[in-house]
Amino acid sequence: MSQATAGPEIERLIQLLAKLPGLGPRSARRAALHLLKKKDTLLEPLAKATAEAAAAVKLCSICGNVETRDPCGICTDLRRDPSILVVVEDVGDLWALERAAATKGRYHVLGGTLSPLDGIGPDDLNIASLIGRAKNGEVREIILAVNATVEGQTTAHYLTDQLEGTNVKITRLAHGVPVGGELDYLDDGTLAQAMKSRTAM
Amino acid sequence: MSQATAGPEIERLIQLLAKLPGLGPRSARRAALHLLKKKDTLLEPLAKATAEAAAAVKLCSICGNVETRDPCGICTDLRRDPSILVVVEDVGDLWALERAAATKGRYHVLGGTLSPLDGIGPDDLNIASLIGRAKNGEVREIILAVNATVEGQTTAHYLTDQLEGTNVKITRLAHGVPVGGELDYLDDGTLAQAMKSRTAM
Repeated sequence: MSQATAGPEIERLIQLLAKLPGLGPRSARRAALHLLKKKDTLLEPLAKATAEAAAAVKLCSICGNVETRDPCGICTDLRRDPSILVVVEDVGDLWALERAAATKGRYHVLGGTLSPLDGIGPDDLNIASLIGRAKNGEVREIILAVNATVEGQTTAHYLTDQLEGTNVKITRLAHGVPVGGELDYLDDGTLAQAMKSRTAM
Repeated sequence: MSQATAGPEIERLIQLLAKLPGLGPRSARRAALHLLKKKDTLLEPLAKATAEAAAAVKLCSICGNVETRDPCGICTDLRRDPSILVVVEDVGDLWALERAAATKGRYHVLGGTLSPLDGIGPDDLNIASLIGRAKNGEVREIILAVNATVEGQTTAHYLTDQLEGTNVKITRLAHGVPVGGELDYLDDGTLAQAMKSRTAM
């Protein structure tokens, strides 16, 4: 017996939802059904929202942020400190730092990390524009807020080398025990770093 | 410092994605970013697919299936056996049985289970139409393929009572060890049922 399908439009919706991170084929089907059952309150608003987001989305030509304006709201916000540049791998990291209100500086999105094995070299990342910004005379500190992974740290070291001689202070995020974290569940590297970087009470 | 937002269109997209089952606020943000970064290959196709699905979706007036035709493809498929009705709680269950090619019969979607505590009585489910179909002279067996939960079983007992005197055979799905399941991980109720319903090799 051949399997009955719910119609090409519904199959196509399931197929696309399954491409979202966090949704597999099974949960995509569940999500599609949920949408179909809530046509007025969810499916139609989502159709509108996706179309509007697609029309509005822009890449900031200064920092690489994904936004609805170019330059983005952060680059044009006069209350943000133009002397501090926070370098992140990805827009998701920028969003995370903004949620935490972790900096009053501006950003620079690399668009990934150096990864020779995957064929990603310096020219594939927004590094030339970072060096340009570092030399504009306004920037005094560059904070390398890359992930604490091998690729992130390799990229940080490469950037430090490239930025030598620009008279800009280069810093990186502190390693240590996450707030609320339990020592027993932490890896040895983090514990060793937290011990080494201990601060006075 | 106030948090910078990525623009109202993007915030709205995140908000709606967070309403999908399986996606929380955090994964909705990740999904939205993934969509925005793949504007041409994912966000625009999804905008099109959601709009088309919203325009196409219909509720089958015979069985309650969610589909793009009314009556649905299963109800109008002459190769399906009209003497067998498989009663399911939800369209998701119908899709699961179709994927498994578990039946050559047709379906009846209840749209939920009896749940006095939530104020869901017989009139809130597609029960009257089920009894109507049971009496149409064509149906010889009704398979109650409801979930093996308290609500599902309560509903099954209620339906059995209601269908008494219709001269239709009422059956339910077998309980037992799932195919591929390990005894050690199964609950006691399932194991006891599987033992009681053991079959000859």
